[in-house]
Amino acid sequence: MSEGIDFYFDFASPYGYFAGTRIDDLAARHGRTVTWSPILLGAVMKITGMVSFATAPMRSDYFYRDIGRFARYLGVPFTQPATIPMHSLAASRAYYWALENRPEMARSLAKAIFHAHWGEGRDLSEPDAVADVAADLGIERASLVDGIRNETVKQALRQATDTAVARGVFGSPYIFVDGEPFWGTDRLDQVDRWLASGGW
Amino acid sequence: MSEGIDFYFDFASPYGYFAGTRIDDLAARHGRTVTWSPILLGAVMKITGMVSFATAPMRSDYFYRDIGRFARYLGVPFTQPATIPMHSLAASRAYYWALENRPEMARSLAKAIFHAHWGEGRDLSEPDAVADVAADLGIERASLVDGIRNETVKQALRQATDTAVARGVFGSPYIFVDGEPFWGTDRLDQVDRWLASGGW
Repeated sequence: MSEGIDFYFDFASPYGYFAGTRIDDLAARHGRTVTWSPILLGAVMKITGMVSFATAPMRSDYFYRDIGRFARYLGVPFTQPATIPMHSLAASRAYYWALENRPEMARSLAKAIFHAHWGEGRDLSEPDAVADVAADLGIERASLVDGIRNETVKQALRQATDTAVARGVFGSPYIFVDGEPFWGTDRLDQVDRWLASGGW
Repeated sequence: MSEGIDFYFDFASPYGYFAGTRIDDLAARHGRTVTWSPILLGAVMKITGMVSFATAPMRSDYFYRDIGRFARYLGVPFTQPATIPMHSLAASRAYYWALENRPEMARSLAKAIFHAHWGEGRDLSEPDAVADVAADLGIERASLVDGIRNETVKQALRQATDTAVARGVFGSPYIFVDGEPFWGTDRLDQVDRWLASGGW
């Protein structure tokens, strides 16, 4: 069990977005910081037999209602993307590229990607679309588009995903607090109490 | 959309149990009452492609951790039943039998069934086991065991399940507040705000 707060998410997950708007502030109230790790959930969903809410009979109607309602409940920007689920490969690689090459920008880039996709409804499946988001933060487009083709970047994402799966991660968001796992943005209240109390 | 608060659940669902410990008090704070409707979720889970948490790879470990931790978080009794999921047919029918024949006892019976299964870990798959719970409330064992074989009782459960599915219910607990659907005990905070505000 590693110490710290580990925040695993898929950029294609709206509940990951919701958690991402809150988790740093939540941790800071307890004097803690958070490690963000975007991963690709497609492979692990095959293992667990889960199917996307977005396409499942009956559940999809509820899903679309829930995500808009949840955003209004939290008071965070939300525009339903035309493409759900988007392909989050380029966005995820962009994060690990930034972590290596522009580490001071990585967290901001992750939040900007979440905001562009879930706050503004933009499809970030293509590297160029991710580069548009990065450019607004002052990251040179060509550096990012070229960079995410690097084997080290691809490997960083594979490694993060493999590590997450090995730790039992099967959904987004998935948060470890000093090794204790919490799945879902609707467990943040329990994360908060866990940080306050050290467990129960 | 019907008015009122409708609480659909499966007795085999621990999250239904958790919601059942809170929803009446929550509603009462807003001057409202709740209609309880046990249903059988097995059929609808086939429609939506959901599989039980209890047996899914990776998710089952988390599920067992989550339900115990959630119970301690809420401060409600919890004993992990040896049989998960139990077969909730007899328990569900017992509720509809009581609703018809001992209506003043029906709510208490539902709560006692939840408590016996999730609070004490007892397997209530068999009618005799349900009758044990009912007997503690002063309900004659033979009346209940005979009663749940009645076609009207069987029909009441089928009707409740069919109505739920027609309204989009695919999980437990599933709560309608004046027609607005909320899935999961982790949406009770939103149910609370919806009751306070009339929506957002």
